Amino acid sequence: MNVTHQEWIDQAIELAYENTKEKRGKPFGAIIVKDGEVIAKGVNDVLQTHDPTAHAELQAIRAAGQKLGTSDLSDCQLYASGEPCPMCLGAIYLSNLKEVYYAYTAEEEAAAGLGTQYYYEQLALPKHQRDIQLQHVKTNAGDRDPFALWKKLGR
Amino acid sequence: MNVTHQEWIDQAIELAYENTKEKRGKPFGAIIVKDGEVIAKGVNDVLQTHDPTAHAELQAIRAAGQKLGTSDLSDCQLYASGEPCPMCLGAIYLSNLKEVYYAYTAEEEAAAGLGTQYYYEQLALPKHQRDIQLQHVKTNAGDRDPFALWKKLGR
Repeated sequence: MNVTHQEWIDQAIELAYENTKEKRGKPFGAIIVKDGEVIAKGVNDVLQTHDPTAHAELQAIRAAGQKLGTSDLSDCQLYASGEPCPMCLGAIYLSNLKEVYYAYTAEEEAAAGLGTQYYYEQLALPKHQRDIQLQHVKTNAGDRDPFALWKKLGR
Repeated sequence: MNVTHQEWIDQAIELAYENTKEKRGKPFGAIIVKDGEVIAKGVNDVLQTHDPTAHAELQAIRAAGQKLGTSDLSDCQLYASGEPCPMCLGAIYLSNLKEVYYAYTAEEEAAAGLGTQYYYEQLALPKHQRDIQLQHVKTNAGDRDPFALWKKLGR
């Protein structure tokens, strides 16, 4: 099998097109390839499922991990129709994906009203400068401290 | 009902403790509260499901959106046992959560071997300086351009 990056990315774009045409969701699709075969697909399913995390890349990463029986996707390639948002880029890091290809750029996404630049700017800020301020609540776990147990179990 | 932040956060910590004790997963739990009621829960399920995105906060956000029938969680509160990673913080932004509380700090996570500082540092870098280089492939969608269709449909 000798499929080029262009052909894989076209498959991701076609998923995005069909997702839009069927009025199922936003215009994003993604595939994950291993050893020259597509092992997982995803489309933006936020509108359909009401799951705010159901971006195409995240759906494909979830499916790939479950299919392969490992959360380590370091020997896979991700092809995304659009440049990933910070949540999806976080998932790319967490899954050890090394090779990621995309077609539509962040600038093209922004021009279509689908930009994620604000989120990148927010995550790049020192935490006390972000618009959403996460609030620390003192722990009170006593002898039911999950971190102490985690360390004790040596996981 | 008059449950304090401390009591909600203790519920999230208890989820984390049970998840660890049952050797199900990593020591993280999260709950989402709306109008004084818990509407969704999540634990870190990565080890069990092999889904690299199955962090406690993400699982709780997914469940809350599906339960409420909306991806807009702006009237909810998230209580997470640990300070969220960038993927989860991205999901917090995408779901419009405004109030987020956590117990264990990023520093405590790092001390337990569960730190996410590297990911924050990576996402804060200009994209050409990140360890994972996303690669642009030119689009070739012709009359099956998902963004053009999206704009035409006025979604």
